Amino acid sequence: MPFPPAPADKKLLEEGDVFTPKFDAHGLIVCVTTEASSGEILMLAYMNELALEKTIETGVAHYWSRSRGELWRKGDTSGQVQEVVEMRVDCDQDALLLRVNAGGDGKACHTGRKSCFYRKVENSDAGPRLTFSIG
Amino acid sequence: MPFPPAPADKKLLEEGDVFTPKFDAHGLIVCVTTEASSGEILMLAYMNELALEKTIETGVAHYWSRSRGELWRKGDTSGQVQEVVEMRVDCDQDALLLRVNAGGDGKACHTGRKSCFYRKVENSDAGPRLTFSIG
Repeated sequence: MPFPPAPADKKLLEEGDVFTPKFDAHGLIVCVTTEASSGEILMLAYMNELALEKTIETGVAHYWSRSRGELWRKGDTSGQVQEVVEMRVDCDQDALLLRVNAGGDGKACHTGRKSCFYRKVENSDAGPRLTFSIG
Repeated sequence: MPFPPAPADKKLLEEGDVFTPKFDAHGLIVCVTTEASSGEILMLAYMNELALEKTIETGVAHYWSRSRGELWRKGDTSGQVQEVVEMRVDCDQDALLLRVNAGGDGKACHTGRKSCFYRKVENSDAGPRLTFSIG
C-alpha cells in the first residue's frame, strides 16, 4: 500500500486479481457491513484510504466518519469492535463488502439497535411512510 | 412526492415515521440490493430522486446509472428485472436497502455473475490480492 491505480482496461479491472479500490472525489469508498454468522446487513459506511489500509492491516473495521471528519475505529467507544471475517469488492471496485463478527453487545447502530436499517419504507395513498419492523 | 426535507431535529430524523431520503451533492442516494429469498447481497448502486420515485411507484427497482448518466430500470436489456419485496432506510436516511426478487436468470451483475461481489480481498506479505471465491 498505497493502492495501485485502476487499470485502463475494464476487463482487467473486473476480471483481474489486482486490488485497485476506487475512491470518489472526496477520497471515500462505500462499504456495506454484514454480520458474518447471519448475513444480516448491519450498516453502511465509508472508508478513506487510511481506514481501508488499517482495516486490512489489523483485521478490525475502520471507517471514515463523515460527520466527525475523522478516522473511526468502530467500537472504540461502544465496544462494538468488528473483527473482519472476509472483505469483498465489487465488479468495478468502487464498493466494499465486509463480513464481520461484531464484539461487545453485537450491535452496530448508534441508536442502540443491531442494524441501522430498522425502518421499512411503506407506500400508501398519502405517500411513503416509515414503519419500525425491527428494533 | 417530491420527498419532504429532513427535519432539523436528529431525533425526528432517526426515530420518526417521515421518509426524508438524503441525496448527496450529486443528487444521489446509495442503495444496497439483496436477494429477498436468500439475503445474498447482489449489488450496490445509486438512485436519484426520480429513480427512487419510480421504484416506489412501480415496485420495480430503478437506479441512476452514473456511467451512462441516465435513469436505469434494472433488467430492461438483461431481463433481470428486480421486483421489490421490501425497502428499508438507515438511521440517518442516507442509505437504502432493497430486498428483491430478481427476474430472468436471477442474476444482477453485468459480468454474468449473480452478485457483483464475486472477488475476495486477501492480504499477504506482498499486499492485498483478489481471489475469485464465487464464480
